[in-house]
Amino acid sequence: MNKRSPSLGKIKVNTERLWDSLMTHGQIGHTLKGGLNRLALTERDKQGRDLFKKWCEDAGCTVLIDEIGNIFARRAGQNNHLPPVMTGSHIDTQPTGGKFDGCFGVMAGLEAIRTLNALNIQTIAPIEVVAWTNEEGSRFPPCMMGSGVFTGKISLDEALSTKDDAGISVQDALNQIDYNGSKSHLGHKVTAYYEAHIEQGPVLEEQQKQIGVVVGALGQKWFDIEITGIEAHAGPTPMHLRKDAAVAGAELLQFIHQLALQNSPHGRGTVGCFEIFPSSRNVIPGRVKMTADLRHLDSIVLEAMTQDLYRKVDTLAQKYGLQINISATADFPPISFDSQCIDQVRTAATDLGCPNMDIVSGAGHDAIFMADVTSAGMIFVPCEGGISHNELERAKAEDLGAGASVLLNVLLSAAGVFEND
Amino acid sequence: MNKRSPSLGKIKVNTERLWDSLMTHGQIGHTLKGGLNRLALTERDKQGRDLFKKWCEDAGCTVLIDEIGNIFARRAGQNNHLPPVMTGSHIDTQPTGGKFDGCFGVMAGLEAIRTLNALNIQTIAPIEVVAWTNEEGSRFPPCMMGSGVFTGKISLDEALSTKDDAGISVQDALNQIDYNGSKSHLGHKVTAYYEAHIEQGPVLEEQQKQIGVVVGALGQKWFDIEITGIEAHAGPTPMHLRKDAAVAGAELLQFIHQLALQNSPHGRGTVGCFEIFPSSRNVIPGRVKMTADLRHLDSIVLEAMTQDLYRKVDTLAQKYGLQINISATADFPPISFDSQCIDQVRTAATDLGCPNMDIVSGAGHDAIFMADVTSAGMIFVPCEGGISHNELERAKAEDLGAGASVLLNVLLSAAGVFEND
Repeated sequence: MNKRSPSLGKIKVNTERLWDSLMTHGQIGHTLKGGLNRLALTERDKQGRDLFKKWCEDAGCTVLIDEIGNIFARRAGQNNHLPPVMTGSHIDTQPTGGKFDGCFGVMAGLEAIRTLNALNIQTIAPIEVVAWTNEEGSRFPPCMMGSGVFTGKISLDEALSTKDDAGISVQDALNQIDYNGSKSHLGHKVTAYYEAHIEQGPVLEEQQKQIGVVVGALGQKWFDIEITGIEAHAGPTPMHLRKDAAVAGAELLQFIHQLALQNSPHGRGTVGCFEIFPSSRNVIPGRVKMTADLRHLDSIVLEAMTQDLYRKVDTLAQKYGLQINISATADFPPISFDSQCIDQVRTAATDLGCPNMDIVSGAGHDAIFMADVTSAGMIFVPCEGGISHNELERAKAEDLGAGASVLLNVLLSAAGVFEND
Repeated sequence: MNKRSPSLGKIKVNTERLWDSLMTHGQIGHTLKGGLNRLALTERDKQGRDLFKKWCEDAGCTVLIDEIGNIFARRAGQNNHLPPVMTGSHIDTQPTGGKFDGCFGVMAGLEAIRTLNALNIQTIAPIEVVAWTNEEGSRFPPCMMGSGVFTGKISLDEALSTKDDAGISVQDALNQIDYNGSKSHLGHKVTAYYEAHIEQGPVLEEQQKQIGVVVGALGQKWFDIEITGIEAHAGPTPMHLRKDAAVAGAELLQFIHQLALQNSPHGRGTVGCFEIFPSSRNVIPGRVKMTADLRHLDSIVLEAMTQDLYRKVDTLAQKYGLQINISATADFPPISFDSQCIDQVRTAATDLGCPNMDIVSGAGHDAIFMADVTSAGMIFVPCEGGISHNELERAKAEDLGAGASVLLNVLLSAAGVFEND
């Protein structure tokens, strides 16, 4: 049915053009350390949006904006009654973010369209490149706001009324930068969604793979823990009469680390905050405030880890004669990406000769929300040392090019190629 | 030689008068929570000093001030060529201190003199009650400044030029409150020194003893420790690729606790400060700053504990692949009080029918400096829950009275009673 099929799986994007786009776009909001400061819905974000929109229009796309400011650049297909095959990510950044987190996925989508134009390839279904609003959530919590509203996970009204530290609402900010779009585009149907992203972790680099075939995303459970002991003088208080909150806290911290190790490779356990009071070198700590962040790909295992944590808290409270309170503050279930999407990514990477491996996403992405409303998949490329959310974030042009080429072939496979002969 | 000897060992002070003195003196700088705020060399400290001085003069003492502001109230003996038997403590407090830490020892000495007056007992050697300057070191570091200068541990010039946060020197503050005394009294000879003090720990209360016979003071070694790992995202970073500084820090904290437990009953190990960076719930901590406070009565054991700590630091650095720096910030050797002074305290307590036990001081006291220049001993009495350096510090009148009675009999034993018959 498709005469060009044999070679279609091996089409490559123009890596140099992709890199140039990332570097040119990365001039908007660039920082002295080589990163980006382009918080959502700021003047800099507007400049970034405007440039992306212009490039998409130059590439022949129709650009639509929805009510939460998501930008959709549509390249028409042969049958425009079909819902589009969508790809993209975000162009807002952390206050001290990098040039690749988010931007790579958006520019890879644009580069796919430019390559299709250059090769004069027409798809059956339309292809749409999206730039989701406020993925980072740094200025307006929560994160993944644009895709959250698009997929109905977050209410539009709630999102629009969210205010930043200066008291400016999302609605006001959208109006201010003139990205307050139309209701009719919100939550439109999508055939499939693919997102290319830097890994933001060290696995691909360590395994010397160029492409991560993302099979799912870890579920997350967050906890606040407070341990109350008795503050006392470090000299006159013998060891057996102490109620040292920090000693119990340290044992719990170690336990959380071990719990995740025991549930490798998909377990994570992190104590990111650990404050002790009164914090004086010769006073026995009477109180500890700490956090726990547990993650796993399997919701049953994640629940079992949670139960283990609660049991350990009880055991420690008894062992040390302390009061320990634990409360859950967030709960995101694990997700598995669509098996066909996963296969498409793996096949494209293999056909292109890119060393690849299955991987899970430990962090949140717009694709996770999209997986709830359509078939979705993700493509990871390595970033140096796994460093992200940091001005020092780095990625290699050849890896980014490979990721964009995989994306292009996956898009073609999902949208279908129209042969006019 | 002494016809009254049989009954002399059982003389008791007037507990009510002692309590009244403590409560009356405790009105100067009292806080709403029932404690004291009477920092060294402030206007409140001056008022406290003036009242003590007046009470001593009323009791027939000669009051002398030395160059660092220590106050000596001397009750003449039969032979005033003999160096005085000295007792006392301090009347300055922590910013949120209690009514008994320090004040008890000074008022117990005054009460001993008042009792001797009431019973018309003349001692052979003079008896001197001292109020040491700036024991707490809260306004002017270091602590135990007055006894430190008196015993030559701290240079007079260095002490006088020490400034508080407002830039006022000890010399200026002494001049301001008019307690800049004479060089001739600094470091004068002392036959023996005894100090009564609340325990500031929970041991006597737990053991249901009224008197602690203090046999020595723990040596102390203080350390600053910094652990450097790699900050990373808690989601995408698998457990085996982490360099989590907090996990290593928690293991070190636990080790320090165990090290002290293994060296019970005289070992202490405390991590009073434990800060992690960047302190964000979903970021793996890249850095920990912590302290260690090791104490023991035996200098050889304390040194061995120190070596164990350094070895553990090396082991952890290797185990986790982290950089760990440790530096010693303070080193106070253990001291043993004079065996004869210890016996005098134990005998007096037993003769008075006070349940007593040998105990060590975990904290610093002026008596520790005095032990270097004369025979010295200490008497501890319980304080509620071991709580001290706190406005909630509490002690029972009967325990304070018992401690003062022990002190009185010890003073008589050291100074000798003159029988004029």
